[in-house]
Amino acid sequence: MDTNEMTGYKAWLRYETAENETLREEYRIYCSSIAVAEQSRVLLTAARELAAAVRSITGHSPSIAPSLDRASGVVIGVKGKLDPELEQALSSDIAELSDEGYVLRTLRAGSGGAERIAIVGGAEAGALYGVFHLIRVMQMRKSLGGLRATEQPANRLRMINQWDNMDGSIERGYAGKSIFYRGNAFVDDFSRIRDYARLLASVGINAISINNVNVHREETKLITKQYEETLSRVAAVFRDYGIKLFLSVNFASPIAAGGLPTADPLEPSVKEWWAQRASDLYRAIPDFGGFLVKADSEFRPGPFTYGRDHADGANMLAEALAPHGGLVIWRCFVYNCLQDWRDRSTDRAKAAYEHFMPLDGRFADNVILQIKNGPMDFQVREPVSPLFGGLKRTNQMLELQITQEYTGQQKHLCYLVPQWKEVLDFDTHAAGKGSTVARLASGVLRERPHGGIAAVSNIGDDACWTGHPLAQANLYGYGRLTWNPSLSEDQITAEWIRQSLGCDPEVETVVSDMLRKSWGIYESYTAPLGVGWMVNPNHHYGPNVDGYEYSKWGTYHFADCRGIGVDRTAETGTGYTAQYHSPWRETFNSLELCPDELLLFFHHVPYTHVLHSGNTVIQHIYDTHFEGAEEAAALLEAWKSLEGRIEADYFALVAERLAVQSEHAKEWRDVINTYFYRKSGIADRQGRLIY
Amino acid sequence: MDTNEMTGYKAWLRYETAENETLREEYRIYCSSIAVAEQSRVLLTAARELAAAVRSITGHSPSIAPSLDRASGVVIGVKGKLDPELEQALSSDIAELSDEGYVLRTLRAGSGGAERIAIVGGAEAGALYGVFHLIRVMQMRKSLGGLRATEQPANRLRMINQWDNMDGSIERGYAGKSIFYRGNAFVDDFSRIRDYARLLASVGINAISINNVNVHREETKLITKQYEETLSRVAAVFRDYGIKLFLSVNFASPIAAGGLPTADPLEPSVKEWWAQRASDLYRAIPDFGGFLVKADSEFRPGPFTYGRDHADGANMLAEALAPHGGLVIWRCFVYNCLQDWRDRSTDRAKAAYEHFMPLDGRFADNVILQIKNGPMDFQVREPVSPLFGGLKRTNQMLELQITQEYTGQQKHLCYLVPQWKEVLDFDTHAAGKGSTVARLASGVLRERPHGGIAAVSNIGDDACWTGHPLAQANLYGYGRLTWNPSLSEDQITAEWIRQSLGCDPEVETVVSDMLRKSWGIYESYTAPLGVGWMVNPNHHYGPNVDGYEYSKWGTYHFADCRGIGVDRTAETGTGYTAQYHSPWRETFNSLELCPDELLLFFHHVPYTHVLHSGNTVIQHIYDTHFEGAEEAAALLEAWKSLEGRIEADYFALVAERLAVQSEHAKEWRDVINTYFYRKSGIADRQGRLIY
Repeated sequence: MDTNEMTGYKAWLRYETAENETLREEYRIYCSSIAVAEQSRVLLTAARELAAAVRSITGHSPSIAPSLDRASGVVIGVKGKLDPELEQALSSDIAELSDEGYVLRTLRAGSGGAERIAIVGGAEAGALYGVFHLIRVMQMRKSLGGLRATEQPANRLRMINQWDNMDGSIERGYAGKSIFYRGNAFVDDFSRIRDYARLLASVGINAISINNVNVHREETKLITKQYEETLSRVAAVFRDYGIKLFLSVNFASPIAAGGLPTADPLEPSVKEWWAQRASDLYRAIPDFGGFLVKADSEFRPGPFTYGRDHADGANMLAEALAPHGGLVIWRCFVYNCLQDWRDRSTDRAKAAYEHFMPLDGRFADNVILQIKNGPMDFQVREPVSPLFGGLKRTNQMLELQITQEYTGQQKHLCYLVPQWKEVLDFDTHAAGKGSTVARLASGVLRERPHGGIAAVSNIGDDACWTGHPLAQANLYGYGRLTWNPSLSEDQITAEWIRQSLGCDPEVETVVSDMLRKSWGIYESYTAPLGVGWMVNPNHHYGPNVDGYEYSKWGTYHFADCRGIGVDRTAETGTGYTAQYHSPWRETFNSLELCPDELLLFFHHVPYTHVLHSGNTVIQHIYDTHFEGAEEAAALLEAWKSLEGRIEADYFALVAERLAVQSEHAKEWRDVINTYFYRKSGIADRQGRLIY
Repeated sequence: MDTNEMTGYKAWLRYETAENETLREEYRIYCSSIAVAEQSRVLLTAARELAAAVRSITGHSPSIAPSLDRASGVVIGVKGKLDPELEQALSSDIAELSDEGYVLRTLRAGSGGAERIAIVGGAEAGALYGVFHLIRVMQMRKSLGGLRATEQPANRLRMINQWDNMDGSIERGYAGKSIFYRGNAFVDDFSRIRDYARLLASVGINAISINNVNVHREETKLITKQYEETLSRVAAVFRDYGIKLFLSVNFASPIAAGGLPTADPLEPSVKEWWAQRASDLYRAIPDFGGFLVKADSEFRPGPFTYGRDHADGANMLAEALAPHGGLVIWRCFVYNCLQDWRDRSTDRAKAAYEHFMPLDGRFADNVILQIKNGPMDFQVREPVSPLFGGLKRTNQMLELQITQEYTGQQKHLCYLVPQWKEVLDFDTHAAGKGSTVARLASGVLRERPHGGIAAVSNIGDDACWTGHPLAQANLYGYGRLTWNPSLSEDQITAEWIRQSLGCDPEVETVVSDMLRKSWGIYESYTAPLGVGWMVNPNHHYGPNVDGYEYSKWGTYHFADCRGIGVDRTAETGTGYTAQYHSPWRETFNSLELCPDELLLFFHHVPYTHVLHSGNTVIQHIYDTHFEGAEEAAALLEAWKSLEGRIEADYFALVAERLAVQSEHAKEWRDVINTYFYRKSGIADRQGRLIY
């Protein structure tokens, strides 16, 4: 089957024909010809993408030429290389453009001439983003008259992390197998990789690491000569879309792939080995992005083996990459994963801060620390990691998880844009008011040379990429937020719906409502009040309240017959709250001030503790779980109301997932409620059925 | 390495040289020559085994000849085919011998001649067992003077079930990979299979099924022509040791291997297909044993698919095998494994009885129902299955589990002979006093044509066969009990120790004490008072109190803040107790009469309920868990006291396992105690550390 005919394959690049004749005609006239002044692959990519979109939306194929062959049309160009008249007309718009920024403007050609559209990038990637902006406007069915937008990306790095293994599996993948690998080799046909690059570029992604941060045996060899030729071809696919290729590396590569007796970062032979690898890689891929590293974490090798610290390890790699302009992205997901559950003094939440704060200022300028949004691990609810706001003299990136490891694994609907917005907007108060995570991650607040956002991808080789078709909205929203964290949830949602499901207002109303509520619904029937975990070990799907309670992973709830929660206060707990700036340290530390949704993350309280909501903790658990399961069932009903308004296969696929969610939400409800009823002995005030 | 040099490989057939010169000389003289009157492979096996034993024990090689070449020696023969003088002298001993029975007797040859030893079997297998008896006497360092034993096996079938898969894995195997298969094929070298046959024959085993009861894709083909030649060679190996070969079969074979559209047992084409398979198999293996079947259980196919019942299914196979003298062994491990944990009316413990009692009397004479010892699944403590005593007109076999799935997986020491003795000696009162499981399984009580005992093997390709060297005692003891269920635990233990570890009295004292206590120790630090489960799902190792509490497997404890246990009484519970005969139905049904060790299997009680022991349930949990962990540590100390008295590698291997057990027992102690302390809120009276 042609991939484009597979249900959901086109995602938000459907380019559906405009039904409104006036609009269609407007689009046709504005876009009747496309001029690309300069011959560059990225600009040609842009022109072809626009031509394909126009053809599909209007039914007419525009011409592509070095200059416009008629009065109207779209000019795609790069600042400084435009025809002088246009350069002059746009001079104020383009003055401050960065390489990836662009101007998109409808303007009159000459005096009294027809209107044309100029898309001018700071460099060629900017022009590509401008083109996708124009396409988005058309897909949203808005008029092209009077367009005047100047956009710059808020983040220098806007990255996707693939957790793909070369055997074709994907760690925490819920949408099929890898589109990159099969049987310990790259796939032969790169066309799906190219289609992925299109999707990513269309939402502003400019970097991708293509192998799992847990680098296994075969993947360790990716940085050796064996894979140079193939990698350069993969890089070329992404390069056409303005995306840089990164690789996850095994810190022990000098031993595993180089035959050296050590991987000690201070050992000259080790430095030399990495420098040689970097040289070779950059000869094959001149714009190679750099290395992503998970070191000394969850049994991965790292500098600790040699008595060195993370700065020693990261700087050694940075030195190898620096001559070529490469980056080291070093993950801060470091903690003791052999903790004794009996030990209440160790707190996993404190680990990243304790490991990395003492190293602040010691990392090279081309090292970026990649910090997960929360201190634990992508739970449905966590406070923001205190490393944001803690680190002052270190490049930082925010790491999010698009793949729904702990949020329903793409069987449950969980739109994560609202969660990510909360994280990005969180004001750490690190340098007074307005010290948001968004400004820290981008590097603006501390004036760092590098920064950005990375996220673990949710795609695989499923027809619709993401298992659950509606989970595409998370990939879309993620990209848009990396470009501009201040975009509103409503705007992102509307964009995604109109482009993916068409412009039927009823569809938009119903689906936006479903998406908007979905995170809250998932939270309500799973682990309560920020305590997290309570899932089955290993695969992390489905309820298991004690699943991680007696484990080595540092993930406990300490529920007994009287109460529940983790005391992380300064006075009687682990003292984690002290890692925050005021007022958060006081807010989180205070039983009175702590927000309800994070109460059990910070405090151990009796089940009879009264929340700000006026409810007791135990009654809150019962209420949210009964309501959550009802709301999950209502999601399915809402979707069913759209039957006939959505393409039938797509409709059925979503309905099937929502039915699974509805059933599974009942399982969550009953297991959680029964567990706490049995443990507390406190009856539900409403006398509902608990087992 | 020569397998015989691998630590523990020889197991109880070590044939250590006798250090006592008088004994050695006695053995040498008695066994200076071996006469085998008849040329048969089994008798030759027997003669060669005896010669090897004598050579090793005495340092002298006996001769083997058709008749004795000197006055003294061992005559190995078969009743009815002895030289007339000997036949006459033994006439009263051999009069009642069954085929597998034997006489072992020291007697004076002629008048005033030297003493000789006669080993006479009812048939050739009997003679082989007699030889192993003689070897055992020598290995126990007992005198051969005045021997006069007549033995008959109590059970007609004494069987081992291998749960080996053809990919080389073993379901619930804790001692390496399969000795039968590798890479979806039989191994090339059968020498290890032969050594296994020796071990089994030496303890009286006469039947083996060589593939997992869960019959997967490749194993389904074992009954097809493809494997005939190989199977006939495997059967020949076992035949030399008096052991019949059985195969586990897939009930859906007609579809999966025969290309038929159905496996309906009443369909003529299906019957025909099975009849043809049986014919072919018996042409290749004339003494083939028959089929072992797991049907309509845990997702295995069976007659239910076609609206037929277990009798329909079993009898159809029986009809195919009957002309050849083959048996169908049909497992009764049938229950709903998709149970809703919320449903308290369904009771897995009742399932086997409910499925099979209505079919009593409907099974063909060559069908045997194989019944697990307890109604659940090989837990450390269960009541006896009420099918024993329930069924009257059906052949039965008892199924035990030697492999320690739920009893420490051969990392923990758990000598199961005491448990099995309890099961065998359990008086069901089905036909008045003395209606023991032993007499029901053997068929004696109900005068059934077939009966016996089967057990899941605990061996793999580990050097010592069983992972934990001391776990060999379970395989040994199992075999001995199948031969004679009334053997005492002490005798079996002493036999095994002397043959496996030598005759050092200190070793015997210490090791027999360790073995004797080990089941109780394991029970004390794991799931309390017969409630069972509380293990990690799937692999079943290590503590997880709620591991199966909200599952589909029908395995619950219903602990809440007030109490724990499963109410299986007639009045307020599931009514399971009514499946027993009096007085057990009243005993188990009564909170006052129910034995402490099974209390929570039958009753839901408050933690403050006072046991017969005088302790409350909660305090019993704390006490046994603290004590159990201490006793586990004491096992290691006891073993350490034997350093220098045991071969060094063997000593070290056992010490290593005991150290693991000691540590892991603490984990069990702390998880269980903490769980119940948190849940009940009741403090330990002795104020010991609970987390």
